[in-house]
Amino acid sequence: MTLPFHWVNGTPGASISLSDRGFSYGDSLFETFRVHRGRPHLWRYHLQRLQAGQRVLGIECETRRVESQLELALDWLGTQALDDAAARLTLSRGAAGRGYRSAADMSTLTLSLDTVSPWRSVPSAARVILCETPLAIQPLLAGIKHGNRLEQVLAARELQDEDEGLQCNSRGEVVCGVSSNVFIARDGKLLTPPVVDCGIAGTVRRAIMEALAPSAGLEVVETRLHPDDLVTAEEMLLTSSLQGIRQVARCGEHVFTSSQCGDTLREHFFHFSESSE
Amino acid sequence: MTLPFHWVNGTPGASISLSDRGFSYGDSLFETFRVHRGRPHLWRYHLQRLQAGQRVLGIECETRRVESQLELALDWLGTQALDDAAARLTLSRGAAGRGYRSAADMSTLTLSLDTVSPWRSVPSAARVILCETPLAIQPLLAGIKHGNRLEQVLAARELQDEDEGLQCNSRGEVVCGVSSNVFIARDGKLLTPPVVDCGIAGTVRRAIMEALAPSAGLEVVETRLHPDDLVTAEEMLLTSSLQGIRQVARCGEHVFTSSQCGDTLREHFFHFSESSE
Repeated sequence: MTLPFHWVNGTPGASISLSDRGFSYGDSLFETFRVHRGRPHLWRYHLQRLQAGQRVLGIECETRRVESQLELALDWLGTQALDDAAARLTLSRGAAGRGYRSAADMSTLTLSLDTVSPWRSVPSAARVILCETPLAIQPLLAGIKHGNRLEQVLAARELQDEDEGLQCNSRGEVVCGVSSNVFIARDGKLLTPPVVDCGIAGTVRRAIMEALAPSAGLEVVETRLHPDDLVTAEEMLLTSSLQGIRQVARCGEHVFTSSQCGDTLREHFFHFSESSE
Repeated sequence: MTLPFHWVNGTPGASISLSDRGFSYGDSLFETFRVHRGRPHLWRYHLQRLQAGQRVLGIECETRRVESQLELALDWLGTQALDDAAARLTLSRGAAGRGYRSAADMSTLTLSLDTVSPWRSVPSAARVILCETPLAIQPLLAGIKHGNRLEQVLAARELQDEDEGLQCNSRGEVVCGVSSNVFIARDGKLLTPPVVDCGIAGTVRRAIMEALAPSAGLEVVETRLHPDDLVTAEEMLLTSSLQGIRQVARCGEHVFTSSQCGDTLREHFFHFSESSE
């Protein structure tokens, strides 16, 4: 067997019901994470975000079921001796009849494993642009990683050969990258936008705020950022589960030359990733 | 063969790829419509809304492909001698690799047919409530019927035994029902909220605005409505592809006693539905 490999409700398979509410309405949650040396990286953070999403959407699935699905995959991966894999776990409300109110008998849980470059080989010097596609303000769905991602799909379509695009909310405040969170460094502090109106509460973002920055003696402040703040920053960082902590070399026409905070956090991150769980 | 019956890309089948972007991101469009006496009702309106959605999301699919998929279904239905069926046509961007930017080789086109009560047997006196789940303001996605419908899913979960819930946008203006559009009658005019910030441009709504109301000598005004406007209205109507034009008997504690506009529009609608295409 080779990657990609897929499981649906604990059984190898790559198809789901056409009547799945994940397909009908994006009525689902997902987690994308690295499996590194046979272990799911930052798993506790991913699981907690999934559970937060379950509470918001009311999608039932016992943690035991999620973890046994994952164990199946890890057992299989073990025999492949892969150091790094990209995993996507999706939890949808399940197959149901027509209409928003239609009930599903059981949620659908899928897991896909695919190849991915090792972290340390992810090129660090990202080029980013500001996308025009705004993020709507919807506090009910902010923070969680749900299956309604058309705003990200449209923003991604704006990208040419850039590595990432930043998205603002409809008030013009920078919120996050299309598939990353964003930090800037200024006057010795790390600043990152809150994810209370829109945006996803990323797991690497959380690792930085709760563990990596404190370990490195860096203060992190959650604060609203405007596009003007980006170009007066000394450094810009992107964080994501699959790419870790990336340095931004260029945002539009603005070139960043410092990488001091990024270098420090990355070293802590590589260490953290191997010992935290 | 009995209903429900499903086709995927022109072939009978009820499963899709786990890697379909419709499942991954709600990266899709759909149309729900009636097949009445073997013909898709208000088909031109549905097709035009689908095409508008394709332009917004950049999902490619030739009209010929959509229509031949539908013809297949109608041919099959013909032999079943069904007067009424509910159809859902979904067009997703298709199966693709990981990530928002990942390209799909071909869009996925699915069609499901299911049983439905005849229009004239849909109970007219609906009870509705105002839902608490707001609709985010996102003009880019307004009007079209895309696959990101968590706001509707959450609002539908607020309903107990009511027939429908109304949703406001984040400014507190009433926009539409969870799965319907809304009209109120006041001082001889029909008022309905615009769908430029959020909400779906319903096909029965369009039929009323462009054909039924003018035929009935009723003026329709698109205007912002607040919850207070609902209880001072003489009449309230809900419109949807599957239920046609429903009279609202009760909105929260407020009881509507007039059904004059609704009765007139319904008679025009039953006629229109059989002769317009």
